[in-house]
Amino acid sequence: MEKLNVDEKLSKLGEDIFNQIKEKRNPCVEIPIRTLLNVYFDENTGLLNLGESRSKRSLLNVAHIKKFMQMLMVSAKCKELIKENKHASLRELYYQLKYSVGESKENTVEDEKESNACVVDLENIMGVFREELNLNAKKNGSLYGDVILSQDEDVFNCSKLGRGGWAVPSNMGDLKIESLNVDYCLVIETDAMYERLIEEKFSKRENCLLMSTEGQAPRGVRRLINRLFYEFNLPIIIFTDGDPSGYYIYSVIKHGSMSLAHLSKHLGTPKAKYVGMTMEDVYEYDLQNVTEKLKEYDIKRAKELMNYPWFKDEKWQKQFKLMLKKNIRLEQQALANKGLEFVAKKYLPEKIAAENFLP
Amino acid sequence: MEKLNVDEKLSKLGEDIFNQIKEKRNPCVEIPIRTLLNVYFDENTGLLNLGESRSKRSLLNVAHIKKFMQMLMVSAKCKELIKENKHASLRELYYQLKYSVGESKENTVEDEKESNACVVDLENIMGVFREELNLNAKKNGSLYGDVILSQDEDVFNCSKLGRGGWAVPSNMGDLKIESLNVDYCLVIETDAMYERLIEEKFSKRENCLLMSTEGQAPRGVRRLINRLFYEFNLPIIIFTDGDPSGYYIYSVIKHGSMSLAHLSKHLGTPKAKYVGMTMEDVYEYDLQNVTEKLKEYDIKRAKELMNYPWFKDEKWQKQFKLMLKKNIRLEQQALANKGLEFVAKKYLPEKIAAENFLP
Repeated sequence: MEKLNVDEKLSKLGEDIFNQIKEKRNPCVEIPIRTLLNVYFDENTGLLNLGESRSKRSLLNVAHIKKFMQMLMVSAKCKELIKENKHASLRELYYQLKYSVGESKENTVEDEKESNACVVDLENIMGVFREELNLNAKKNGSLYGDVILSQDEDVFNCSKLGRGGWAVPSNMGDLKIESLNVDYCLVIETDAMYERLIEEKFSKRENCLLMSTEGQAPRGVRRLINRLFYEFNLPIIIFTDGDPSGYYIYSVIKHGSMSLAHLSKHLGTPKAKYVGMTMEDVYEYDLQNVTEKLKEYDIKRAKELMNYPWFKDEKWQKQFKLMLKKNIRLEQQALANKGLEFVAKKYLPEKIAAENFLP
Repeated sequence: MEKLNVDEKLSKLGEDIFNQIKEKRNPCVEIPIRTLLNVYFDENTGLLNLGESRSKRSLLNVAHIKKFMQMLMVSAKCKELIKENKHASLRELYYQLKYSVGESKENTVEDEKESNACVVDLENIMGVFREELNLNAKKNGSLYGDVILSQDEDVFNCSKLGRGGWAVPSNMGDLKIESLNVDYCLVIETDAMYERLIEEKFSKRENCLLMSTEGQAPRGVRRLINRLFYEFNLPIIIFTDGDPSGYYIYSVIKHGSMSLAHLSKHLGTPKAKYVGMTMEDVYEYDLQNVTEKLKEYDIKRAKELMNYPWFKDEKWQKQFKLMLKKNIRLEQQALANKGLEFVAKKYLPEKIAAENFLP
C-alpha cells in the first residue's frame, strides 16, 4: 500500500466518495467497529488493539444519512485546518460546523458528541490520530527536568523554569526533543507530589525528568511519554496513588485505552514500569495508619480491573486481592507521614535503585 | 502594633497560650467568625471582607479540646516548615499530622477537612495567608507572553517556551517578576482558548500576557494576577464563558471569594475588567445559532449571583436578566462559528480597543 500523508488520505476519502457518486452507486464507507467486543489485548506488543470487524455507512440510508453528512463536514474542515496550518479544539470544531442548511431549521450538528464521533470515525477509517488532523485534545500536565525542547522558534530547557516547569500543550505535532540529559522519566499522578519532588531537588539528584499527569493522563502527555521512550529509549517509571484509579492511569499510559484502541501505538508505552504505591508498601514502610478505606466505586472498579487481561500478572492480581481483603487504598501523599523528604530521599530512590517495580 | 513576620506570629501564638497555662488560666484563642453573616462587600475597596465578629476557642471545653489540639499541631508543623524552608500541600499536612497519641487508638486527625479548618483558623487569627505558612494550594494554570520571571536560580521569559507556556506553581512566595514588556494581561477561562490565542500569535500582536485559569482560578494564578497589577500597574482583562460560572470566575478574581474573604487583599484585583462573553455579544456578533440552553443549575446560580452586592451594577444586572429571559449561555469557543481567527483578529481587538468592558 502506498504511503499517503494525512492530507492525501483526506483527499482520497473524498475522491472515493465522489467516484461512487459518478458511477451512480450509493456512496459508502467502511468503518472499524469500536465496541468493546472488537477490542483485544495483544500480548506480543503489550497494547490494546482494534479487531477486524467493520460496519458500512452509506449515504442513502435514513439511519446513516446525517452521520454521513457530518463525517464529510468534519473531513472537509480538517482538510482546511491542515491547509491553513491551524489547530482547533473539539469544541471549536463543533461550533464551526453548527449551522442550519438553506431554509431548514435543523442544525447540521446539534451536540458536540456528534462531531466528536465523526473525529473518531475518521481516525479509524484513515488510520491517523486526531492531532494529525490538527484537532487538539484537552491540555494538561507539566514537565520539569533537563530536556531541551524546541517548538516554533523557541528552544528551552525544562530544568530552567523555576519551580513551575513547562506547561505541556495538547498537540505535540511539531515539538522537537532536541536533547536529553537524564536517566529516566518519572510520571506522577498528582500536582502536589510533582511540586514536592521539585522542592526536594529530586530531578537533579536522581537525574530524571518529572512529568505530572494531573489525574488521568491527557493525550499530549501520553504522546510525549511515548516519544521520549521511542525516540530516546528513555525508561518510563510511573508513580500514582495505590488505588484502582491510580492503577488505571498506569495501564492507560502503558497499554493504551479501550476507547482509543486504534491509537495505542502512538499513545501507549508498553515498556513503562510501575513503582508505587503498592499494597506491599503499606507494610514495608509502616503506613497502616494512613491508609484510607475503599469507597464503593473503588471496590467495583478493582474487581473490573483485575479481570482485564493486561492485569493478569500475578503481582498485579496480588495488589487487587490485598486491596480488597484489607479494604485499603494508599495515596502518594500518605508518605508525608514519614516526613516530607521521605518520598524523595528514601522511598523512590530505594525502590528505583532496586528496580522494585510492578510489570 | 509592632510588625511581626509569620514565624514571629506563630511564636507569639504559642507564647500566649503558654503564658495562660503558667497563670493557671484556661488557654483560649479568639477566632474571627467565617460564616456568611460575617462577610461583607466593601464598596470602597471593591473587596469582600471579613467583619468583626469573633468566637472563643478554649482548651478546657469538651466541644473545643480536639480542635484546640489540632490547631496547635498545625501551628507547630507550619513553624517547622518555615524553619526548614519546605512547603507542604494540604494533603501532606493532613498525613503528617495523622497518628495516634500514646496508647489511644484515636487519631489526632481523621479527615483532611479537620486540618484544613485549622489552616483557615490560623490564617484568620494571625492575618497571614497559607502560602506564608508554607502550605501550597492546588496547582493549575499557565502563563504565556513577554514577562521575565525568576525563581530559585532560574531566569526565564514566558514568551520563549514554545506553545505551552509556563506552568504556574501553587506558591508564588519567592517568585520575582523581573521585567514586563506588555500592555495588559488577558486572563482566560479555558485551555482551548488559551491555545487558540497562542496559535493566532495574539500575545505578540496585541502585546499582552495570556494566563489560563483552567476553570475556577487557583490561588497561585489569583496571587500572580494581583501582583502583576499591584507591582506593575498592569491592566487585567478577564475573558470567560458567558454563563454564571464564567461570571463567578471573574468576580472571584476581582473581588475575592466568600470562603477566603480574609485574604481578599492578597488575592483580589478590584480594578480587573470583563471583556466577554456578554449577552450583547450574541446579537452584536450574530451568534444566536451557537448559544446553549441554560441548565437548571445555571438558572439557580444566575439568580443567586444577581443578588450579590458586587453584581448590582446595572450592566451586570442586564446580563443576568437577558440570560434568564432568553434562556441562553454563550461559550468562548462559540466564536469559532465565525472562523477560528475571529476571536483573535476581530472580537477581542475590537472590544479591547474600544474599552467595551463590563465593570
